[in-house]
Amino acid sequence: MHILILGGDGYLGWPTAMYFSGKGHDVTVVDNYFRRNACTELDCGTLFHVPSLSERAAIWQEKTGYTIQVVIGDLTDPEVMRSFFTGDVTYQWPSNGAVCAPPDTVIHYAEQPSAPYSLLNYKYANTTISNNLLVTNNLMFALKDLKPDTHVIHIGTMGEYGTPNIDIEEGWLEVEHKGRKDTFLFPRQASSIYHTSKIMDTDLMWFAVRTWKLRITNLMQGPVYGLETDESKIDSRLKTIFNYDEIFGTVVNRFITQAIVGYPLTVYGQGGQTRGYLNIKDTLQCVGKAVQTPAKQGEFRFFNQIMETFTVRELAELTCTVGRSLGYDVVIRSVENPRKEAEEHYYNPVYHGLLDIGVIPHYLTEEVMKEIFLLIAPFKDAIRKDVIFKGIKW
Amino acid sequence: MHILILGGDGYLGWPTAMYFSGKGHDVTVVDNYFRRNACTELDCGTLFHVPSLSERAAIWQEKTGYTIQVVIGDLTDPEVMRSFFTGDVTYQWPSNGAVCAPPDTVIHYAEQPSAPYSLLNYKYANTTISNNLLVTNNLMFALKDLKPDTHVIHIGTMGEYGTPNIDIEEGWLEVEHKGRKDTFLFPRQASSIYHTSKIMDTDLMWFAVRTWKLRITNLMQGPVYGLETDESKIDSRLKTIFNYDEIFGTVVNRFITQAIVGYPLTVYGQGGQTRGYLNIKDTLQCVGKAVQTPAKQGEFRFFNQIMETFTVRELAELTCTVGRSLGYDVVIRSVENPRKEAEEHYYNPVYHGLLDIGVIPHYLTEEVMKEIFLLIAPFKDAIRKDVIFKGIKW
Repeated sequence: MHILILGGDGYLGWPTAMYFSGKGHDVTVVDNYFRRNACTELDCGTLFHVPSLSERAAIWQEKTGYTIQVVIGDLTDPEVMRSFFTGDVTYQWPSNGAVCAPPDTVIHYAEQPSAPYSLLNYKYANTTISNNLLVTNNLMFALKDLKPDTHVIHIGTMGEYGTPNIDIEEGWLEVEHKGRKDTFLFPRQASSIYHTSKIMDTDLMWFAVRTWKLRITNLMQGPVYGLETDESKIDSRLKTIFNYDEIFGTVVNRFITQAIVGYPLTVYGQGGQTRGYLNIKDTLQCVGKAVQTPAKQGEFRFFNQIMETFTVRELAELTCTVGRSLGYDVVIRSVENPRKEAEEHYYNPVYHGLLDIGVIPHYLTEEVMKEIFLLIAPFKDAIRKDVIFKGIKW
Repeated sequence: MHILILGGDGYLGWPTAMYFSGKGHDVTVVDNYFRRNACTELDCGTLFHVPSLSERAAIWQEKTGYTIQVVIGDLTDPEVMRSFFTGDVTYQWPSNGAVCAPPDTVIHYAEQPSAPYSLLNYKYANTTISNNLLVTNNLMFALKDLKPDTHVIHIGTMGEYGTPNIDIEEGWLEVEHKGRKDTFLFPRQASSIYHTSKIMDTDLMWFAVRTWKLRITNLMQGPVYGLETDESKIDSRLKTIFNYDEIFGTVVNRFITQAIVGYPLTVYGQGGQTRGYLNIKDTLQCVGKAVQTPAKQGEFRFFNQIMETFTVRELAELTCTVGRSLGYDVVIRSVENPRKEAEEHYYNPVYHGLLDIGVIPHYLTEEVMKEIFLLIAPFKDAIRKDVIFKGIKW
């Protein structure tokens, strides 16, 4: 199977590329280095240097014998997107002559993924909206015009749903009103411009599926944690990019990094914010199962991609416990919440669809967190305290 | 009161400007001539030549003594948007020195308004999404950063709701699910990229109102018909732009024009598509009442801005009746529907909010349609049959 990964340089994109390549699939990755460039521009710091995509693909090939084809391009340009379906190499750099057939599956990670980034100011908000929407729209039109039977796996976010006062279903909700019934997308109201751009993605994909009978799986993912996957163990230079800063870092990774460097764990306000979480290994498993059992033609399929829920307070306490057991002097500090969000709320999401198709969760036990501590600890000297908390306001 | 009209050159924007100016308000209009340029590029044809915004403002001033301030600028540029709230004239052209105070009310029409335009191909789809979303986002951030107490009146569309199998409420829906309740935006699923971009607008404005306590009225408008308003009667050069082509023309205006020129009325498929309609005079009335009784700070207020519903078949039959009574040889022709839409469906929208605040509807009677026939008839020789139907496919 030929799998095209949009955003193949990112925290999830690169591990996904190795995962499928290691199983013998033809894999093409495309990226414009948006995330790397943003990290440089915003001085976010990363835990370690990550080789370029081409360098990583070369290391991967040397170690495994498998080829990952690399294209550097901006998918907000519709001609770049369409080139993967037409084989027009004039739009592909590096144009190494190895023109692939059109993909059977597209995995779409090519979005600006940070809520604080989207609220830095109006320019970053505009970049978030136009990047995310244009990439998704270019993909929809390329499929419609050129290859409608391609299965798309889009990475959505649980954040689209927000924190409603009713149970969160997997994508859809049957509504009864004045004695009549209809089924709609589950209500969405997000708490950042980034998360709102993902709602817009969903609006757009739902239009495309209804109108053009495309086939899309939308993985409504929670915050991911972790650093290592089976494939990254092969060579230390294959590790994925790891952010622990306020803009691109996710909470579990941030807390562990803070614990190691002796920076008090930053709990926003009451810390009662409840979300669903998953291990990076489970992101790969979920995407893998979604590829194996694709959406049907004309189906817009949703899975809530989380394995368990925690409050931020619980995560801080777990980090404390594990950190102290490893000899770190970990403390928790409640800081004034820079975000506009409910700090205590009802939260009861359904998430059995991925288990039903065979995903076996890695839960965030003390043992699992300890493993992540041990992976991050060697980089202690590289951790920059100044990027951990700047209080980007909503 | 100072009223800023975004998209002040359009079919509704210019009549709105005259309406408020004629009541003694300070009015500023801003436009980038997007619509005019698109009409030229796509060779749409218009019924008559429309003077430039500056020329129209000069005619208006000569005839009434009232000044409408004109700025030509692209509101997808955030600095242009912000200049109206900061008074930075370096971003305003023509910079005539008359720096206005920030507006008390913003009326936001500055969007690409055509469903067929948005589906011409992927480039027009991208333009629709980026134009509409960036203008709205720039407005949200300008208000948040510079003047959050400004009342915004945004022109939405009934098309956001689509044709659900339940009654359409005015913006919101209380949902009961598994014994718990919450209130959400009414479910939205639109039938074009344009209409989907308006759903995205709503997502974005709802985020902004929730997070920053802005005050927004969203007028969910149906297709508008008509040509004349009280102010345009003052001088024939003050008439608003009138499109009858497939891209920018709306159905009633198109049918009347087709009847006059002997072009069979193009009913798509069964013609059972039901929508809510209103007279252009009522658009002005509705916006006027919304200005008089603004949304409260922190309120996202919706009105369904329609006065009555018709099927396309009913509109064609009404046009036949009136046209024949005026001596035109009118026939109806069902054409294969180029759109993907339900041709027979449930449709029961609620629309009493605007009546409650004092709007008195002009209904589409035979008499009213006859008046529109008589306004369009003098331009018969200018009507181009080749732009009426091209069958732009969804």
